[in-house]
Amino acid sequence: MSDSRFFSVKGPFKIRELARIGRASLHRDVNLDQLIYDVASLNSAGPDDVSFIDNQIYLEDFKRCNAGACVVHPDRVGLAPKSMSVLESKEPYLSYARIATAFYPSLDESLDIERPLTSQIHPTAKIGKDLKISAGAIIMQNASIGNNVRIGPNAVVGPGVIIGNDCYLGATSSVFYCIMGNGVRLYAGARIGEAGFGFAKDRSGFQTVPQLGRVLIGDYVEIGANSTVDRGSGPDTVIGAGCRIDNLVQVGHNVRLGENCIIVALAGIAGSTELQNSVTVGGQVGIAGHLKIGEGVQIGAQSGVMRDIKSGERVGGTPAVPIRQFFRQAATLKKIMREKDKK
Amino acid sequence: MSDSRFFSVKGPFKIRELARIGRASLHRDVNLDQLIYDVASLNSAGPDDVSFIDNQIYLEDFKRCNAGACVVHPDRVGLAPKSMSVLESKEPYLSYARIATAFYPSLDESLDIERPLTSQIHPTAKIGKDLKISAGAIIMQNASIGNNVRIGPNAVVGPGVIIGNDCYLGATSSVFYCIMGNGVRLYAGARIGEAGFGFAKDRSGFQTVPQLGRVLIGDYVEIGANSTVDRGSGPDTVIGAGCRIDNLVQVGHNVRLGENCIIVALAGIAGSTELQNSVTVGGQVGIAGHLKIGEGVQIGAQSGVMRDIKSGERVGGTPAVPIRQFFRQAATLKKIMREKDKK
Amino acid sequence: MSDSRFFSVKGPFKIRELARIGRASLHRDVNLDQLIYDVASLNSAGPDDVSFIDNQIYLEDFKRCNAGACVVHPDRVGLAPKSMSVLESKEPYLSYARIATAFYPSLDESLDIERPLTSQIHPTAKIGKDLKISAGAIIMQNASIGNNVRIGPNAVVGPGVIIGNDCYLGATSSVFYCIMGNGVRLYAGARIGEAGFGFAKDRSGFQTVPQLGRVLIGDYVEIGANSTVDRGSGPDTVIGAGCRIDNLVQVGHNVRLGENCIIVALAGIAGSTELQNSVTVGGQVGIAGHLKIGEGVQIGAQSGVMRDIKSGERVGGTPAVPIRQFFRQAATLKKIMREKDKK
Repeated sequence: MSDSRFFSVKGPFKIRELARIGRASLHRDVNLDQLIYDVASLNSAGPDDVSFIDNQIYLEDFKRCNAGACVVHPDRVGLAPKSMSVLESKEPYLSYARIATAFYPSLDESLDIERPLTSQIHPTAKIGKDLKISAGAIIMQNASIGNNVRIGPNAVVGPGVIIGNDCYLGATSSVFYCIMGNGVRLYAGARIGEAGFGFAKDRSGFQTVPQLGRVLIGDYVEIGANSTVDRGSGPDTVIGAGCRIDNLVQVGHNVRLGENCIIVALAGIAGSTELQNSVTVGGQVGIAGHLKIGEGVQIGAQSGVMRDIKSGERVGGTPAVPIRQFFRQAATLKKIMREKDKK
Repeated sequence: MSDSRFFSVKGPFKIRELARIGRASLHRDVNLDQLIYDVASLNSAGPDDVSFIDNQIYLEDFKRCNAGACVVHPDRVGLAPKSMSVLESKEPYLSYARIATAFYPSLDESLDIERPLTSQIHPTAKIGKDLKISAGAIIMQNASIGNNVRIGPNAVVGPGVIIGNDCYLGATSSVFYCIMGNGVRLYAGARIGEAGFGFAKDRSGFQTVPQLGRVLIGDYVEIGANSTVDRGSGPDTVIGAGCRIDNLVQVGHNVRLGENCIIVALAGIAGSTELQNSVTVGGQVGIAGHLKIGEGVQIGAQSGVMRDIKSGERVGGTPAVPIRQFFRQAATLKKIMREKDKK
Repeated sequence: MSDSRFFSVKGPFKIRELARIGRASLHRDVNLDQLIYDVASLNSAGPDDVSFIDNQIYLEDFKRCNAGACVVHPDRVGLAPKSMSVLESKEPYLSYARIATAFYPSLDESLDIERPLTSQIHPTAKIGKDLKISAGAIIMQNASIGNNVRIGPNAVVGPGVIIGNDCYLGATSSVFYCIMGNGVRLYAGARIGEAGFGFAKDRSGFQTVPQLGRVLIGDYVEIGANSTVDRGSGPDTVIGAGCRIDNLVQVGHNVRLGENCIIVALAGIAGSTELQNSVTVGGQVGIAGHLKIGEGVQIGAQSGVMRDIKSGERVGGTPAVPIRQFFRQAATLKKIMREKDKK
């Protein structure tokens, strides 16, 4: 059960409703009118809760689980406790995501303080309907804000920035030189549109190159806490629709991300590199500049990528090589070590 | 001597007082009433200062040191200059920490501007005694603040958050969905309680999973500048009492840190991983999700941890192996290289 | 052409002026009075634009380029399209930087909202001429601000801090315990002067060591978005003139950077390490504490440096070795692998 100090739950829902919401199928012996009041994890769920199992390592928790209902993959249905109403789904985590969203349709971290005294909207800014603006938030000159936008405490929207509908800007985040689609979510402290790392060597030091591009952010993108996305140097930096960027990620100037890319925490993508659609970048990965990473590529955590990668490849290591080769290298090395040690 | 523009020093203290404060022992020929006015490093200390030596590489500085007094390990007492009053301690850095704290009992980075015009406390928030709140700071609805809390400029305390006594929230830090003990210190820009990186793949993109847990922070925890600690997805994210987290560290949702763990800068800990008490995580280390890291484990800088680690082990490398094996691997590899080069 | 919503362009300039500004030479058949209105990238430039080529991989774009003028290295002049006025320079990127700066002399991300309602300057602070302060910005007690300083929205200048002339503090950045030269630029969310990671082990936990040093920042330094530079523990942390620090970089206490060092994103430098002049540190590099890195050293991306490095060396890998050795190791290893695989 979530902490009512922070979260307010909708419901209850009947099992039959949850099946529809989660696009799951039910078994004959289930009571379709059984009421479910909340979501919970396997080891804390009780008879009024719905849970899910999606990871092998929690199998023992599943077998002992007291949840009233649970989203389960067909292969594991046989292991369910008898007391449990099984919601069968080939994608249990996705089904759970939909069900949990029904119980908790929106989390209002930045709910405005009624009539904040300290926020400031420039008179030239265009504001859509139903803006919720928190204390200390600032909307600068000529910015344009869509409908149903929430702006967290001490967040900053820079001059001329365009924000679409249904966007959320977390506490103390800042956005400059940016055109943002609908449903975009910036987490606290995200920095969008700062100048890229561009300078030329001078005799006595460095000469800054004016950074004249923007950041274009597609619909439903999420950008994590304290992550940084620099604006382009002339071309734009582009974050394709649906991308999910974790915390503390660096995206350099002129980078182009296709749709639905995943970038895990502490990864860095250097300037002018292009990722096509559905690329997954592991935590702490570094990708050099001016590269092309093909569609659906998966890059293992901590890898260093220094060359183009073709669509569909899985790579790992530094420098990154196909994942099979990476594992074979490791195995061969281990074998050599063992032989050497014997001598 | 510290810069009086920024720091104000207490004292002077007599040598006998410093010995008591630092739990150090004195030698017979020391003048117990000698006055010491400040702390200083070995190479800048003068006759009115107390210094310390704790690292082999500063031994030459120590031999030439002009400090009036110095905290010294018993093994090095013989190398002390004659002019120096020796404070003997088996833990010189700890003794020095106590002595320096006596000279500088509290550093008030965020001392309030008297009557800040721009801070904003929601009427429903509960505020303890002696709150010092800086300009631009925001305390949102239903938050609860203990006694003697200092809140830095432009910091944000989210709805319903509980802050214990004697806490310090640095400039522009933000805290949401969090229950915090006593004596906790957040550095500037730390982000506590943002939603974790949780989503399921959908046909057309990703479906966000509502993150319904909290962040529980134990007593005397410190969390560094621009570090991020996500709230749990259902279970809580837990930071045990006494943990020290450096700058730019990522702690994923549902992570559980035991007591007195040390996490050095730019390290990342993925979701649902558990660290038992007194684990040390080096800089830029990555730890995968759903792992158990035993008590007292030490993980070398830049390592990648992909499996559980037993209590007391020291590991290094990617994938991380016991440190002896890591060094043996490196040595063997070097030997192989050398032989190969000769051929 | 840049987006006029965000950028306002000066000019036009005659070709002869651009040659002078960019310190480039012109060929006889060029029309010296030809007017150029803007800068543009090779693949988007038209007859009114000036572009540049500095990277082999854009050679095809160059051959097909429609720019009215282009900055070109002497070796590539022969490949220029006939329609193009060639500005010949041995340092094309530097020449372009100067020319682009003439078109866009200053980018005012943080242009003040006229008469911000919510900024707050403490009465004891000393303010120079022509301060531009944005909404929500805070200048605390006894701070001293030079002439022509711009302070972004929600930025914080701590007590006693000294800011030189012509400095720029990005949105939500914070500066404490710092003395800053002229022309310094902090990007959004940079954290200067927080306490370093200094504590001693106690029986029951850790004892914090008061951090009594400052951060000294030389002229024309730039520090990237969400980067962190801790103040010294007693000695100062020093950032030499002209250094360029990228986003999400960690600089520990007592670190000393010489002049004109480059530190790329997500790198971390541990406490008390010294970099001499003109050191280049690649992305995600880690450098251990108490080391000396000589003048002009170049450290490859993701390397781990655990020993001193002599001036002029280029190193790579973990632990970092001279770059030739690094590449030879990789080649030898590959050879061994291949032989082993055959067996």
